[in-house]
Amino acid sequence: MTVLGIDPGTLRMGYGVVLEGADVEAADYGVIALPSSMPLEQRLYQMHSHILNLIAIFRPAAVAVEEPFVGRGERSFPGSSLAIGQAQAVVFIGAASQGIPIHKYAPAQVKRAVADYGAATKEQMRGIVAATLGLPATLETDAADALAVGLCHLAQRQAAGALLTEIPPGRER
Amino acid sequence: MTVLGIDPGTLRMGYGVVLEGADVEAADYGVIALPSSMPLEQRLYQMHSHILNLIAIFRPAAVAVEEPFVGRGERSFPGSSLAIGQAQAVVFIGAASQGIPIHKYAPAQVKRAVADYGAATKEQMRGIVAATLGLPATLETDAADALAVGLCHLAQRQAAGALLTEIPPGRER
Repeated sequence: MTVLGIDPGTLRMGYGVVLEGADVEAADYGVIALPSSMPLEQRLYQMHSHILNLIAIFRPAAVAVEEPFVGRGERSFPGSSLAIGQAQAVVFIGAASQGIPIHKYAPAQVKRAVADYGAATKEQMRGIVAATLGLPATLETDAADALAVGLCHLAQRQAAGALLTEIPPGRER
Repeated sequence: MTVLGIDPGTLRMGYGVVLEGADVEAADYGVIALPSSMPLEQRLYQMHSHILNLIAIFRPAAVAVEEPFVGRGERSFPGSSLAIGQAQAVVFIGAASQGIPIHKYAPAQVKRAVADYGAATKEQMRGIVAATLGLPATLETDAADALAVGLCHLAQRQAAGALLTEIPPGRER
């Protein structure tokens, strides 16, 4: 199974293609970085085109996206919520236009699935992702985040698969 | 000049095509309404397709979008900022992919341009838009909002044009 993991952003968008065969490996990963001097609509369109290209090349069975916590009240950041919404839409429209299912994971969920620890730091996550996939530890953080959400989706599927085989037929409820 | 006005939303998106000839008229207007039971990514993709269709049919010279105020602190609504960002991206990606310039207007700017009054109510705006374009007063509010932002862009262009002709060459600064 091939999963395209995305860490959305309107200036930097991390991507990571993870493949599950005998082992788990990264087929591709990187960061689409665009200058802030480029108009927002151009950046969103460029990001959208990149997503379509990645889907066309790797034909992932699923797209996994990190969905950050959007606070309320004191802890809220409406300006960044707007940017998060814009960046998410780029991914959602790209995947939906190709009929590819989208799975959203909260940051803590990704950390628990990959590092077995919901409060792992960015540095720790990068180290674990690099070690898991045999990549250099100097991996860019946004690419590591994207690979992590891809790995998280693979782990979720394995867990769901294990659950299915454990429950004998007829005993489901 | 043809302008496509959009009032973005993830459940309801108003659109209005305004044409400026001898008179100002509406070539098309309406509301793309999708059920909340439809997954978000499907809705965004549907909205995106509609935008592309409208652009293909009417070949607007510009797309005008209402850009709502995104508050900070107490008055902020991060959840709705996220949805606003998603809905905006749909329009931005659609227009940018066709090379059509995007113009953003704040609600108060639209009201001042169309109703000559920045604090006009939704009902007042609808009445003025309907009267200006010779449409029924029962016009849907979201369609009226979209037509209003289209009219706002035409007014801004006229104002900019008037300014250019009033200033004698060589006197610009």
